[in-house]
Formats: sequence, C-alpha cells, structure tokens
Amino acid sequence: MQKNYVNYGNCSVGKPGSTLEITGARFNLSPMSDDFKSIILGAIKQVDLSKVWAETDHISTVYRGKEEAVFDALKAAFLYAYKEGVHMTLESTISKGCPGDTDSDYTLELDDPRVNQAETEAIDFPVIGKFALYPMGSDNYMATIAKVVNEGIDRGVVTGSGHYGTNLGGSAQDVFDYLEYVSHTVGSEVSHYISQFTLHCNVPEGDI
Amino acid sequence: MQKNYVNYGNCSVGKPGSTLEITGARFNLSPMSDDFKSIILGAIKQVDLSKVWAETDHISTVYRGKEEAVFDALKAAFLYAYKEGVHMTLESTISKGCPGDTDSDYTLELDDPRVNQAETEAIDFPVIGKFALYPMGSDNYMATIAKVVNEGIDRGVVTGSGHYGTNLGGSAQDVFDYLEYVSHTVGSEVSHYISQFTLHCNVPEGDI
Repeated sequence: MQKNYVNYGNCSVGKPGSTLEITGARFNLSPMSDDFKSIILGAIKQVDLSKVWAETDHISTVYRGKEEAVFDALKAAFLYAYKEGVHMTLESTISKGCPGDTDSDYTLELDDPRVNQAETEAIDFPVIGKFALYPMGSDNYMATIAKVVNEGIDRGVVTGSGHYGTNLGGSAQDVFDYLEYVSHTVGSEVSHYISQFTLHCNVPEGDI
Repeated sequence: MQKNYVNYGNCSVGKPGSTLEITGARFNLSPMSDDFKSIILGAIKQVDLSKVWAETDHISTVYRGKEEAVFDALKAAFLYAYKEGVHMTLESTISKGCPGDTDSDYTLELDDPRVNQAETEAIDFPVIGKFALYPMGSDNYMATIAKVVNEGIDRGVVTGSGHYGTNLGGSAQDVFDYLEYVSHTVGSEVSHYISQFTLHCNVPEGDI
C-alpha cells in the first residue's frame, strides 16, 4: 500500500502559503440534545455561504475567505443553532497565514462580506467560554497576546484567565465582535496566527 | 472599578514558566444527548485524579501533572463518558512549556502515573477527529509537524489532512496512544508547544 507521507519542504516561516490573505475557520457545533443532528444541519444550511468557500464533512465544517466574511458566516452558524434551553458548545479554530496554506478553496468577494448580518443581528444570548492565541514564528508573541487580552478586559468580555486559556463572557454578539478584533489585530502584526476558542450557551447552573 | 490588566513582562520565549516539566490538558466533553449533564459529571467523577492536579468549572476541566498522568486521566474521562449510541465530542488543548506558566497547580507523583490504565484498557470504540500542532517560538516548526504526521500515517491513525488540521481515525485507544506520542515527541524538541484535538464517537452515518 502506498502511503501518502507529508512533506512541507516548500514552507517557510513568515511566508504565508496563500498570497491572498485568506482567513479560515474550522469549527464544530455540539448541541447537547437528542435533536443534535437536526439542530446542526438546520443551522449550517441556513447560513448564506455566498461570500465564503465552505465544506462540511463528518469531522467539522470549514469556511475560507475574507476575514469579515468568515466571521459573519461562523457567527451565523452559531446563532442559528441556538435553541432556548439547549446547552451547546461551539469550538472553532481561526487561522491565517499558514506556510502550508495554498491559494485554493476560497471565495474572496470584496463587496458586502457580511451577508448574514441583517438576519443575525437580532439574535443574541449570553455565552461563556475561553480562547487561546498562537502567533506562530514570532519571538514577541506574549506581548501580542497581552495587548488583545487587555482590550478584552476593557470591553468587559474577558472575564479572567486560567491555565491554557483566557476566559470569555458576555453576549454572543459582543464576544464575536471581540474575537474578530483579536484576529484582525494579530493578523496584521504576525504572518501566521491561530486563534482557538470555545463558547457555551445555556450552561446549567449550580455546583459541579 | 479596577481592571486587572495582564502583563507578561517576565515571560521569555524558549524559557518555560514552569521548571517542572508540567504538561496540562484543558478539555470539554460534549455528549449530544438530553442526559449530557449526568454523562459529563459521571465520567469526570469516575476518573482517579490522584496523579494529576484537576479543576472543573462551568467552562472546562483542567488536568496538570506529568505527561503520562495527564494523558491517562484525559483518556479515562473520555472513555468513561462513552455511552452506546450517544454521539459525543471531546475537544482538548494539550500544552507544555508556556512562558506564562508557573510552578503551581500541579501534582507530580513519579510512581505509577497511569493510575487509570487498568480500568480503562478494556474500553474501546471507533473515533474520528482532527488535530493541529503548534510548536511555539520555533523557526523549524513545519518540519516537526511533518515528522509526527508521518508517524501517524505509519500507525494508520492519520487518515488525511484538510485545512487547519490533520484528520484522525481509528480506535480510541490507538488514537490516544498516538496523541501522547505527538506530545512526547514535540515536547522533547521544542520548549513550548500546543496540541489541539477534537475526537468524535458514534458519528451519524449518511450524507450531510
């Protein structure tokens, strides 16, 4: 059997594999309900994908395109999956500038990237969660992280920090605005970054 | 109101904040069932935590300690949460060597770190998922990633790759063994790494 080994020989740190400034999100929605399948598929089918490249398989969903378009579509998928009383987790990786990336699988419509905004702006609910930021190939990455964390404290959506992550809390809309600010800020300072976050809604109260 | 801004002034790349080689996992179990609460809490209460420092809050659970002990406890939490027919996702961050880490909140029992092994080794089931590896502050990080991905291809647990991640598949035990190999290998080559993975069990079949 032939094995398709990987070889990243053409990759160089600091040189994004895509020259087109493609931002990507790979995410999972996990509604903790017996109806999870219809909730997930219903939400991802409701998102207007005209401004992103999208692919869903059994492992996760990927959106690729302009930064504003990717955040607009990702936020829409999460908001559309919200059901009153249903505990749900969104886990997402945001990435830009990977040396292994390529100029493929994208949509880069320059006009009106926030095509879901009009329908989603009225949907809002409390979330808690966490995020971690990985600016790659940069020697000054802790300073970059501190800058965006402090902005989150000013906005009131960074609620603390723990091992391996910074805690988030607030309205879904405010937290998404902040996460987009994080990507935008870090993406303009380092050539390759990853932002990893987890958001929960309808979290059961009480002791654990 | 006083704001507790962060300042990572004492952190230096390549100098782990902890001198004790502490490995950590921050994870979420998401059983997609109306019984999610009892499944999650039942599993995390069943894990023998005598060899790790552990903390669960409403956002996630953290284990810290010796690498073998952390993987042993994390695997146990996932295996104990398995219920026949219940689709579940485990999302976990593994990290070691963060410049912002400290020599606190850990257990480093040197004898018998795999204290859950005897009870968990008989539990196994198919999983699919993905992982991504972030060796920080290293200029040669793509070579490190290629090395461990190719080992996964040899083991048969790396099933492909996509944007922002490498796909995993196989038995839960084999995939966990591989993820521990990844951490161990990368942890001995770079001073700070993060491994981020998502595993699914009981994935619905059919078209999406």
